[in-house]
Amino acid sequence: MPVNYTPPTADSLLPVPGIKLGTAAAGIKNWQRDDLLLVIADAGTCAAGVFTQNRFCAAPVVVCREHLALQRNRASDFRALVVNAGNANAGTGEPGTAAARDTCSAVARLIECGDDSVLPFSTGVIMESLPVERIVDALPRAYAAARADGWFAAARAIMTTDTMPKGASRRVTLDGVDVTVTGIAKGAGMIHPDMATMLAFVATDAPVDEQVLAALAPDIASLSFNAATVDGDTSTNDSFVIAATGQAATAPIRHAADPRMALLKNALEAVAVDLAQAIVRDGEGATKFVTIRIEGGRDIAECRRVAFAIAHSPLVKTAFFASDPNLGRIVCAIGNGAAGDLDAARVSFWLDDVLVVDRGGRSAQYTEAQGQRVMKQNEFTVRVDLAHGDAHAVVWTCDFSHEYVSINAEYRS
Amino acid sequence: MPVNYTPPTADSLLPVPGIKLGTAAAGIKNWQRDDLLLVIADAGTCAAGVFTQNRFCAAPVVVCREHLALQRNRASDFRALVVNAGNANAGTGEPGTAAARDTCSAVARLIECGDDSVLPFSTGVIMESLPVERIVDALPRAYAAARADGWFAAARAIMTTDTMPKGASRRVTLDGVDVTVTGIAKGAGMIHPDMATMLAFVATDAPVDEQVLAALAPDIASLSFNAATVDGDTSTNDSFVIAATGQAATAPIRHAADPRMALLKNALEAVAVDLAQAIVRDGEGATKFVTIRIEGGRDIAECRRVAFAIAHSPLVKTAFFASDPNLGRIVCAIGNGAAGDLDAARVSFWLDDVLVVDRGGRSAQYTEAQGQRVMKQNEFTVRVDLAHGDAHAVVWTCDFSHEYVSINAEYRS
Repeated sequence: MPVNYTPPTADSLLPVPGIKLGTAAAGIKNWQRDDLLLVIADAGTCAAGVFTQNRFCAAPVVVCREHLALQRNRASDFRALVVNAGNANAGTGEPGTAAARDTCSAVARLIECGDDSVLPFSTGVIMESLPVERIVDALPRAYAAARADGWFAAARAIMTTDTMPKGASRRVTLDGVDVTVTGIAKGAGMIHPDMATMLAFVATDAPVDEQVLAALAPDIASLSFNAATVDGDTSTNDSFVIAATGQAATAPIRHAADPRMALLKNALEAVAVDLAQAIVRDGEGATKFVTIRIEGGRDIAECRRVAFAIAHSPLVKTAFFASDPNLGRIVCAIGNGAAGDLDAARVSFWLDDVLVVDRGGRSAQYTEAQGQRVMKQNEFTVRVDLAHGDAHAVVWTCDFSHEYVSINAEYRS
Repeated sequence: MPVNYTPPTADSLLPVPGIKLGTAAAGIKNWQRDDLLLVIADAGTCAAGVFTQNRFCAAPVVVCREHLALQRNRASDFRALVVNAGNANAGTGEPGTAAARDTCSAVARLIECGDDSVLPFSTGVIMESLPVERIVDALPRAYAAARADGWFAAARAIMTTDTMPKGASRRVTLDGVDVTVTGIAKGAGMIHPDMATMLAFVATDAPVDEQVLAALAPDIASLSFNAATVDGDTSTNDSFVIAATGQAATAPIRHAADPRMALLKNALEAVAVDLAQAIVRDGEGATKFVTIRIEGGRDIAECRRVAFAIAHSPLVKTAFFASDPNLGRIVCAIGNGAAGDLDAARVSFWLDDVLVVDRGGRSAQYTEAQGQRVMKQNEFTVRVDLAHGDAHAVVWTCDFSHEYVSINAEYRS
């Protein structure tokens, strides 16, 4: 069960004018559920994406990057996104790339657009060949099922080891006009997004220019998905796509400096943060949700290195699981992540509001009971002050439980 | 229980002329066993050390570095090494440094030498103050117990979560003279040595010059301790010290080019590799010992990055535990560790002799049964060919089991 996460409902995910979503059961694995999602965007929609930095990136990621570049060059629209769960189509070589292209062509025939207006995604087991014919067979059913309020069904269709669907919506008013932002994501394991997480799709009807959207996507990713980690493995399929249909009745947003951008960016960030946190809350075997905030770093890179050193340490994560304020493990991780010139004698850290380490040593007032009180909660913050600069960064992670080992020793079987 | 590890016996650890070892129960924790080790070296012994790169390094590491530098500057001898188990004296600030110095002074008074001829070590819980008076009280008993064949008792006294003592010996003949190399180590958790492991001490009676020994220590460490990882956390206390008593009746070895060096280096490396592998075999919760060999890399740094990306991935480690040839997880880890210009379509990997991935894709002959046959063994090799260079590197690791979570969720309690 996810930590402090109320999943979306069919009603809580607001339709985005210009977007329809349909699902179907393609039978990729022996699941008795829909595992194929087709998102259809009206003409006039533009998209931007951020993808995994893994060198063994999946075939659909290669095709996505290519199609987004073609959309930009030919000024063609983004018209569809197709996702299958159960097979990642990664490490599948040329046949895998051909399967991703064939999926796009099948969608393009259905909705009558160019192949490069379609973005393909896959999530699931790596290094097994994609049963593309089952996807092609099921696509007309997903197409027929497509509807504006299909977001909740869509969030469910893309799940793998996720225990709950993940989605979020925000509504903002730009110059008196209501604009909607809705997104869905899936996560669970192999979560340490380098560019974006396993799979997240966010749409808005705000009339954002393609250039502006392309610049915005990495910013949003760095404030949301790139701050989430479950197990430190950057997946082969990480993809975050953001689409703008432009159907809201307000003038086009053509520049990052447009005064409406601040509000819109807030809404996009809020949806992306909700989704990123949902992925961590529902991390494999997670029983705690931990925010790691590093302050006083030389630069953001150092803050993130320290935060991830803490978040990825199996010793720290098992101590989180045990509600054990094992300070030494956190101190050790700080020492591994920090820059070479860190002065350990100036470093302090807190568990929520409890000062634990005061300038390099155990705080005189600190008692083990205080630490335990904080760590027994299923949600708390580790705050570290490196005291040698002005930068800060936040990362969200979960604990490492017996359940994590069980899930990952048994997945596939 | 360690994986395929036969622990040393009192007889298998050969005395090194010039070295005596004594242990005592100082009662650092509530253990009913000896937890204090005093190693005494005859005058004329020199030493070299390699220490943790963790920025929160422990007080004894600071004092060790300082004393070794003083030994070099003042041409004074290495005369003693003192180790306590149960408390790491790390994250303890100025009082911790004072405690490490007080320990050295107490030893210096006993054996009548300068404080800087003594090297202090601590291993155990981080960030609790060292009960130095108990150590000082117990030192005379350890001194009285010191004997040339005390290596086995020594290996036992330094254990923490180790399930078995770790030691190794080799004898080589240099110019017709028998020379002995014997070492002990402790490990178990927080094992990803950046310079050397938690604690390893190797002695020889070979008359190696101090300069030669200082140059040799990092070489030996990189071929042994720095190729071992259990959980990816570099500890605050990692220390590897090598001492040469010079009592073997052969002429001094004053240059790295001395023809006797090859044989001696082999013996030192063999002892260090035995100890490093023993640490992994006895890693917390380990049920498998896995050798990861990366070939065809651009440089050694890339090979080590890929090897550690595999060795540290919790997804790969839980698949090892489950004997599950989950190829995708290994492929994903390769993609995360490799250089940006890796051509995934040329990468191959093997499980022992079974070709699994053939130039970027699943090998046509590969069957899951073959992969499982290899992985069901408690010891096997993952070999990767990156196919874009000539460098190679080897790393040893273990799996991630339920037992790992249990040990680390319950340690301290």
